[in-house]
Order: sequence, then structure tokens, then C-alpha cells
Amino acid sequence: MKVYIEPIGKLINEFSKLPGVGAKTAQRFAYRVINMSDQEAKNFADAIMSAKKNVHYCKICGNFSEGDICDVCKVRSAETICVVKEPKDVIAIEKLNEYNGVYHVLHGTISPLDGVGPNDINIKGLLSRIAEGGVKEVILATNPDVEGEATAMYITNLIKPLGIRVSRLAHGLPIGTDLEYADEVSLARAFIDRKTL
Amino acid sequence: MKVYIEPIGKLINEFSKLPGVGAKTAQRFAYRVINMSDQEAKNFADAIMSAKKNVHYCKICGNFSEGDICDVCKVRSAETICVVKEPKDVIAIEKLNEYNGVYHVLHGTISPLDGVGPNDINIKGLLSRIAEGGVKEVILATNPDVEGEATAMYITNLIKPLGIRVSRLAHGLPIGTDLEYADEVSLARAFIDRKTL
Repeated sequence: MKVYIEPIGKLINEFSKLPGVGAKTAQRFAYRVINMSDQEAKNFADAIMSAKKNVHYCKICGNFSEGDICDVCKVRSAETICVVKEPKDVIAIEKLNEYNGVYHVLHGTISPLDGVGPNDINIKGLLSRIAEGGVKEVILATNPDVEGEATAMYITNLIKPLGIRVSRLAHGLPIGTDLEYADEVSLARAFIDRKTL
Repeated sequence: MKVYIEPIGKLINEFSKLPGVGAKTAQRFAYRVINMSDQEAKNFADAIMSAKKNVHYCKICGNFSEGDICDVCKVRSAETICVVKEPKDVIAIEKLNEYNGVYHVLHGTISPLDGVGPNDINIKGLLSRIAEGGVKEVILATNPDVEGEATAMYITNLIKPLGIRVSRLAHGLPIGTDLEYADEVSLARAFIDRKTL
């Protein structure tokens, strides 16, 4: 006989798709679901569908948003724009409670090896926000890796001639890691030590 | 502002309920779901609901089953019954490909401290299966912990007077762990070395 009956096998298979989850862990997760009450299981499934359905991207900055405009763009002054690679980087920075400007999410970084050029990420949107006026500083908070640095240099070359202050997060962050996983003290320090390019 | 928008916060909360999943891991899982295609997210949610809806318990042995009778009870001779605590223990044993008898799932073990007595677990079902005749051996494969041993002793005292061979998995298993997590070699060895009580 097959070891798992089909509904269990399928669920284990779905859980295995999550990052860092192997066969044994997926199996434990599946048993947990089977032992849930009907309501708990429904809440779980609904949360997945709801996150997929109701999480959109802000039309101004590209951050996660429930409506057209995200909570940050709604209330904050656009004098300072912090440029990040992904929406989850916004969350990492928001957790610090250090920064009170707005964001611009590129949804990627320039990476010629992967075929991602400057036109494949949302640099155009950043330029039109600047063209509208009122922006005094752009903080480049892309990851401190090759692609992130290249993207930061590219954007600097575009924006600096416009007379706007362009800064980069200080390399208090260890090189080669993801911004999302930086410890909060280093990330906060990097904010304070950002240097004018 | 709150760090997470509501649908993300809710999903992170749901993932945190899984065993061994903390805030950071739950967050990674949630990001993975948001980056899934609509179809992938739907498959995931459906797998959860389907496992909850379609996984029943076999009316004979109490194992996981899609129908009234599980795949094991359908095809195997009931000469040897292996008694386990939970359905997941059946899966752990089936993975060995060593055992080809049937099972009896108690859905618990006797644990006076938790208020679980012999009538709260499915011992009655085991006795009526034996009363039907044809059973030659009962293998007690409850966990090698205090509750599992107590349950094994209790069942032995009930069944041995009936002239049926009663055996217990050999203590090749380290005491105090769960049967589900035993390495397969030790578990197979314990099957081979089972001793008559």
C-alpha cells in the first residue's frame, strides 16, 4: 500500500513547497492540520486565500497594500524616499521605528546574469515621483550585494545630476546577506550612518 | 502604522500555530504564499480543507482512512494486530515495509494525571476484534514512555488470559522519545526483537 492516503499526501506535498521545510517537517505540519477543528482549518485556508486576494501593491510606491495606496504613502511626507528591492524590506525597516519617510519598492535589482536590466525594475516610477518635485533625499537601501550595489550606482548616476541628495545605507550590514535578515541594531546603525554619494 | 497589513498579519498568525514555527519563519512562509500564483495558493488552501474533510478514521482499526475501512484492513489478514497510540504511528511502521499484519489505533494512552482512563481510549474495540476470533498475536507498539508502558501492561493483563500471544516492541528504541521520530533502523530492530510478555 502507499504510505499516505491521498489527502494527507497532497497536504504534505504542499507544505514541502514552503522555504526550509523538508519531508519530516511537512508531515508534522499536516498532522497538526488534521488535528485542528474544522473552524481552525477553515481559518487557515481562508488566511491563505485572503492574503493572495487582498494583498496588492501600492500604486505610488509598490509596497504591500490592501487598497490602491498603502498606509505609508497616505500619511507621510514624500520629502525622503527610501528605495528598497522588495516589499518585505519595507517591513524590516518599519520595524525599527527609525525612519519616517516614504518608500519606493523596485521589485527586483539589476542583474545582467539573470537577464534583469534597468527597465525590468521600477526605476521609471521613481523618476516620475522625483519629477513631480518636493523630493529632497533618496536613500538607497538595496541589499549590500553585487546586484544591490550595481542598482544603487545606476540610480545614483540618474538622480544626482538633478541636485537631489542621494545616500546609501552605511555598510554596518555584513556584505552578502539579505536586508530582511539583518539584526535590527545593525540595520538601525546603517540608517544613521548613511553616506552622501 | 502597524507593521503588517491585515491579510499578511493574519496569515503569519496562522502559520505561527504550526509546531516549531516562530515569528520569523511564519513571516517567510507568508511571503512565499504571497509570491505564489493564484492557482498555487488555491491548491494549498484546498489541500488543507481536503485533508480536514476527507481524512476519516477506519471503523475497524481507527487508522487514517478516506472511506469507512482503511486500505490496510481491506487487504490484510487480521491474524496479527499491532496496537499503536496514534494514526501517525501506523505511517511510521508502514514506512519500514517490515510488518504485514493489521493495526489497532488506541487514539491515546492511559494517563491518570491527564484524566485519561482505560475507557477513554479504544481498548473496547480491540477486545471485540479479538472476540470475533482468528487473532493469533497482539503486538503492543505504544510509545516507550510511562503512559505507553502502563497501557501495554493494562492490555496484556486483559488479553493474555485469552491464550493469545502478546508481545511488546523491543527496547531498541531510546526511552522517552516519540515512536514517530525514531530512526527507522532502531524501529525495525524493535520489531524483530519484540518479546513475548
